[in-house]
Amino acid sequence: MFDVFGTLVDWHSSIAAHAARVGARAGVDLDGPRLAKLWRERYQPSMDVVRSGARPWTNLDELQAESLREVLAELGVELGEADQAELVAGWHRLDPWPEVPAALARLRERVPVATLSNGHFRLLLDLAKYADLRFDAIISAELADSFKPDPAVYRMAARLLDVPVEGLMLAACHPSDLAAAGRVGLRTGYIARPAEWGAGSPPTPAPDTDLVADDLADLVDQLLGA
Amino acid sequence: MFDVFGTLVDWHSSIAAHAARVGARAGVDLDGPRLAKLWRERYQPSMDVVRSGARPWTNLDELQAESLREVLAELGVELGEADQAELVAGWHRLDPWPEVPAALARLRERVPVATLSNGHFRLLLDLAKYADLRFDAIISAELADSFKPDPAVYRMAARLLDVPVEGLMLAACHPSDLAAAGRVGLRTGYIARPAEWGAGSPPTPAPDTDLVADDLADLVDQLLGA
Repeated sequence: MFDVFGTLVDWHSSIAAHAARVGARAGVDLDGPRLAKLWRERYQPSMDVVRSGARPWTNLDELQAESLREVLAELGVELGEADQAELVAGWHRLDPWPEVPAALARLRERVPVATLSNGHFRLLLDLAKYADLRFDAIISAELADSFKPDPAVYRMAARLLDVPVEGLMLAACHPSDLAAAGRVGLRTGYIARPAEWGAGSPPTPAPDTDLVADDLADLVDQLLGA
Repeated sequence: MFDVFGTLVDWHSSIAAHAARVGARAGVDLDGPRLAKLWRERYQPSMDVVRSGARPWTNLDELQAESLREVLAELGVELGEADQAELVAGWHRLDPWPEVPAALARLRERVPVATLSNGHFRLLLDLAKYADLRFDAIISAELADSFKPDPAVYRMAARLLDVPVEGLMLAACHPSDLAAAGRVGLRTGYIARPAEWGAGSPPTPAPDTDLVADDLADLVDQLLGA
């Protein structure tokens, strides 16, 4: 199973490009990379309110729309409702990292592959179609009415796939996600994405996972013994 | 969205063939087509107990295993546990009707396609992989902890796909499933499968659905205006 944002798709460049296009059309000065960064920084806090139970389950489109209004205020940018909606919808159209489509297809010939993302079911379906990523199943934290790293999300996936947790591997570029999956009993594969937050981000040390890979092609090589 | 058993895959011939193989190997006289028919006749009653709330949600593997024991007793056939388990697992390996893979692929190029079946999530994943049927998403009644024709199942699908019910079509060969979907507000497409219960079954009249098709290729032609 794969985490999606950052692990399989390059949200930073994609959102920056969407923002540049929308900003240019609206005639406002919108710093795409900065907007992408500020927006994504609000991602975990926005989910925390749901994870804690303080707010009923809310899909990412709603959370991202709320976060975007805050980011635009912080940037001092005014943007109409339709343009904001287009930016939110941009999270359904993110480009995969270059090696992903071929490596995923190669893995899928040998084992079932699924998503396990905090993106809601429809968003993941749209992303998979946009990037032509072929999964055997879309699994979203939505199906547990929560968000990773809530243990309930990983257990829900094992129940749906009708396998013991140790028969599942989660691959992700986020150590906190992998640590939570490991505590539930899943196997874990780290995929380094040094450019997740844009080029020149500070390097992060590889976590203590079953596999550590430079990219998805490397992970698939290790899994299939190539 | 597609119903699966009967609509996309030929359970009758497939189960009969599995039974003939297992019976021959075990040295027992097992009438494959008769076993398939008797087994499937217990399908709705076994789900009724769950749908009514009298029994907690139970996946098809468990229901089919229980029904198989009754059918074998009725046929006066003794079969070991491993052989019975192999027959139950046979429901994960059913051949599609001949036109299905190509017609489904053609439709998938134009609109998102998903399952909506009473088969549990894992069973549907296995069936799709076995028959190389490419769906954009696996949706199972399991995700509503119920079975069709419970209205909650159709509504769950619309919620996950984030579309109004009238933006969804269910295609199926079973009038009761289509009638229930229609009452919830979905559009409905009937696919005739006169050989669902084996050759020579009595014909059933086409129900009052938005589309009526001779097979999936015909349905796709009508949907895409070919």
